[in-house]
Amino acid sequence: MKDAVLKILERPRLRNTILIEGLPGIGLVGKLAGDHMLDELNAKKFAEIYSPYLPPQVNIQDDNTVKLICMEFYYVKVKKNDLIILVGESQGITPDSQYRIAETILDLVEEFNVKKIFTLGGLGTGNITNEPKVFGAVTHKELVDNLKKAGVVFRGTGAIFGASGLLLGLGMQRGIQAVCLMGETHGQIIDAKAAEAVLTVLTRLLGIKIDMTEIEEKAKETEKQLNKMSKMVEEQRKAQERQQRFSDEVPLYIR
Amino acid sequence: MKDAVLKILERPRLRNTILIEGLPGIGLVGKLAGDHMLDELNAKKFAEIYSPYLPPQVNIQDDNTVKLICMEFYYVKVKKNDLIILVGESQGITPDSQYRIAETILDLVEEFNVKKIFTLGGLGTGNITNEPKVFGAVTHKELVDNLKKAGVVFRGTGAIFGASGLLLGLGMQRGIQAVCLMGETHGQIIDAKAAEAVLTVLTRLLGIKIDMTEIEEKAKETEKQLNKMSKMVEEQRKAQERQQRFSDEVPLYIR
Amino acid sequence: MKDAVLKILERPRLRNTILIEGLPGIGLVGKLAGDHMLDELNAKKFAEIYSPYLPPQVNIQDDNTVKLICMEFYYVKVKKNDLIILVGESQGITPDSQYRIAETILDLVEEFNVKKIFTLGGLGTGNITNEPKVFGAVTHKELVDNLKKAGVVFRGTGAIFGASGLLLGLGMQRGIQAVCLMGETHGQIIDAKAAEAVLTVLTRLLGIKIDMTEIEEKAKETEKQLNKMSKMVEEQRKAQERQQRFSDEVPLYIR
Amino acid sequence: MKDAVLKILERPRLRNTILIEGLPGIGLVGKLAGDHMLDELNAKKFAEIYSPYLPPQVNIQDDNTVKLICMEFYYVKVKKNDLIILVGESQGITPDSQYRIAETILDLVEEFNVKKIFTLGGLGTGNITNEPKVFGAVTHKELVDNLKKAGVVFRGTGAIFGASGLLLGLGMQRGIQAVCLMGETHGQIIDAKAAEAVLTVLTRLLGIKIDMTEIEEKAKETEKQLNKMSKMVEEQRKAQERQQRFSDEVPLYIR
Repeated sequence: MKDAVLKILERPRLRNTILIEGLPGIGLVGKLAGDHMLDELNAKKFAEIYSPYLPPQVNIQDDNTVKLICMEFYYVKVKKNDLIILVGESQGITPDSQYRIAETILDLVEEFNVKKIFTLGGLGTGNITNEPKVFGAVTHKELVDNLKKAGVVFRGTGAIFGASGLLLGLGMQRGIQAVCLMGETHGQIIDAKAAEAVLTVLTRLLGIKIDMTEIEEKAKETEKQLNKMSKMVEEQRKAQERQQRFSDEVPLYIR
Repeated sequence: MKDAVLKILERPRLRNTILIEGLPGIGLVGKLAGDHMLDELNAKKFAEIYSPYLPPQVNIQDDNTVKLICMEFYYVKVKKNDLIILVGESQGITPDSQYRIAETILDLVEEFNVKKIFTLGGLGTGNITNEPKVFGAVTHKELVDNLKKAGVVFRGTGAIFGASGLLLGLGMQRGIQAVCLMGETHGQIIDAKAAEAVLTVLTRLLGIKIDMTEIEEKAKETEKQLNKMSKMVEEQRKAQERQQRFSDEVPLYIR
Repeated sequence: MKDAVLKILERPRLRNTILIEGLPGIGLVGKLAGDHMLDELNAKKFAEIYSPYLPPQVNIQDDNTVKLICMEFYYVKVKKNDLIILVGESQGITPDSQYRIAETILDLVEEFNVKKIFTLGGLGTGNITNEPKVFGAVTHKELVDNLKKAGVVFRGTGAIFGASGLLLGLGMQRGIQAVCLMGETHGQIIDAKAAEAVLTVLTRLLGIKIDMTEIEEKAKETEKQLNKMSKMVEEQRKAQERQQRFSDEVPLYIR
Repeated sequence: MKDAVLKILERPRLRNTILIEGLPGIGLVGKLAGDHMLDELNAKKFAEIYSPYLPPQVNIQDDNTVKLICMEFYYVKVKKNDLIILVGESQGITPDSQYRIAETILDLVEEFNVKKIFTLGGLGTGNITNEPKVFGAVTHKELVDNLKKAGVVFRGTGAIFGASGLLLGLGMQRGIQAVCLMGETHGQIIDAKAAEAVLTVLTRLLGIKIDMTEIEEKAKETEKQLNKMSKMVEEQRKAQERQQRFSDEVPLYIR
């Protein structure tokens, strides 16, 4: 099995294409934004990435069938652009797999002639704010002015980890222009407000409108599900530790 | 050395073949069920998987010879089906090796023309119950009805980790129908009752009977062995930590 | 993606070339020394190493563009030698990647016909000293005398971890002469004094002079930046842990 | 760089060759026994294994030159057998590298037509004993009787981790006969007595004599060196943790 397998389900003809990355991260800001955009724009799935560096896990769905953890690419035509929206349940679970999966994402970007990338994420501050700013970072200086006009704040310092950073860093090496939009967030709560702030800036840049009514609702739903599961995950952790001990199965440890 | 080596000892002619996976996991439910089935049906070993992602360990057997940790495939003919039963002392010890080993298992599945897979496991709840339910998850919706008739409960939510999940998730990609049967269990005890519940459903589905008298006995034996070893493993842990310190062998750490 | 990618930006003609390694390590002694030398000698970048075993991270620069974490090679002509100076934000983050990256560095060394290597680092003692010694280790016995004359202290015992050690150990196998210079340092502070001591010895050996006025300043700057970030990193850590929990996304852990 | 590199320095002609493995493990029993045997028999080095899965470390020797961590093979002719003695400063540091390095050792075994392997180790019990037993495990049942006559105790239960186990488990797959001899030891002390017990049995089996006078001395030396370094290693640990924090170098962690 390769480190990351790109599986293309359909080959839509796309023009002036922009990739939008909304994978899980701080405050789930990117994931919330990506998932909401997907739903509101009725985007259509056309590709997937599977990887042994995603959790070895299937999720059981409402219809009792399972779905292997993966990353998913959707497309939708809006105004003068075609959008590819990348979402998923997890990022790569080892540092090096972050690189390998980002390279696979960029392979798709090149195959579908993507002109620009927006990566969405949160910037954790430890504070709660009612009017979260949207911070930016870019691959090329000339991108800054236009983003400032759309309300993006630049601070000229910081670091970006994971896919939201690597798609810029590795994308540059392939000559791709890319922007990271980071919603100001506490860091320890699932933050629909920050996701909304990011989407507000992004849609302004794309010249489209998205209804935000349900994003808060979705975040609450996610929060509730998370709390419900917290106790159960704890139980499983303990169970696992016991199993772990069992794997040293026999009484004598010699080497 | 490859990430997982499939070694075929014999090439039995099998028809209408079903794979049953009983590897260690929560409550050792799957392992207990698989091992018991093996014994009661007098199944015969025909293949093994070795992997550097299984523990680097040999077990000393009654006759003082050692056995390298591996996964083992047995076959047996029952009624209208041939069964392949997969058991072992460990699952892959890194997340990505879970994927690589599952792919190797599926290679065997395809070589022996397996039509269906049942994976057996436990579902940890943190509670002790006298009448454990058997929960299910499937690769294809049309499998649900028949399983419900056999007493399987479906909840349409949850996640399955490890081989019991990946054989479904990766099997689907090869067009294989598969079912995961999970016995309700506390999670922190070795649970013969949950294993029995799973076997009761499975044998009903296969139209065969298996004597359950000794499964409780085996679980007790396993429990006893586990307790006996707990203290000794502790000793070895401490020893190892000391060794670890020694591997920084010389006084100065510079880099 | 390869384990380490050597990217050559320019192919300067170099003669009697010496490689000087100044990557981060104990007390940041090597990094401070390398970075300072680079600045004072106005060296020019000509090559980079990218690797999935460097942190999956981009840093945001003053002009709001991002820079992918990497190692960088600079060159400068001084007196009778050409120098290649190797600096970077990180060493390989897994033990085996230390080897793989060191081999890639040595590939460059051979390509540019490097005759000698100096690796710079700190030797942690747990004590604070006003006149830090510079300890040495070598690949070939005949190098010792000359170093002693330049003030290097030899103790004939110890270990060197990471790039500063492996460039000697693996370099020897390619027939390269190499020296490790280690500044005596506390170990838990960023130590400009130790870096200065190392540079004093090194410049003496190279027969050049470097102004040391700003090295203390730079170390203070680094210290300040480090303290400022400490609290924020803490916040992010907590955030990450919460995310981690989320990645076990659904209530049931079964395997 | 390959996962393990076998480097053959000389190709001695060997007959009726036996491999003796004395790598570090519980109580350093195997290492003490191997190192002592080497010294007393004046064995000669002829091969080495380097691996990125050994610690990324060089040790500074008495003459101030460095030595890259490796495993070493020595040979010596005794009576009717040629012996190959395998020693080293470390075993593979990841579980899978244990397998990969063991396979490389077995490649050498086959190249030099080794007929039999003895692996030496400790069996930790948590107790201190004055007359340590020597426990055994074998690849082939027919080896047991002869070993019993030499004083080896068999218990028919237990597990062997690391090289001492894998050389049996993987050796069997290549048709090689092998024996593991384990000296009874506390587990948390460096145990010359257990090493002596193992050597007593081994030399009896080989029909040779080795002077044991200095083994106690060597163990004390090792112990002393270990204690001296304990505090310094502690210092370095703390230093490293601080460095680690620095590698998250910039204030904002976003992904």
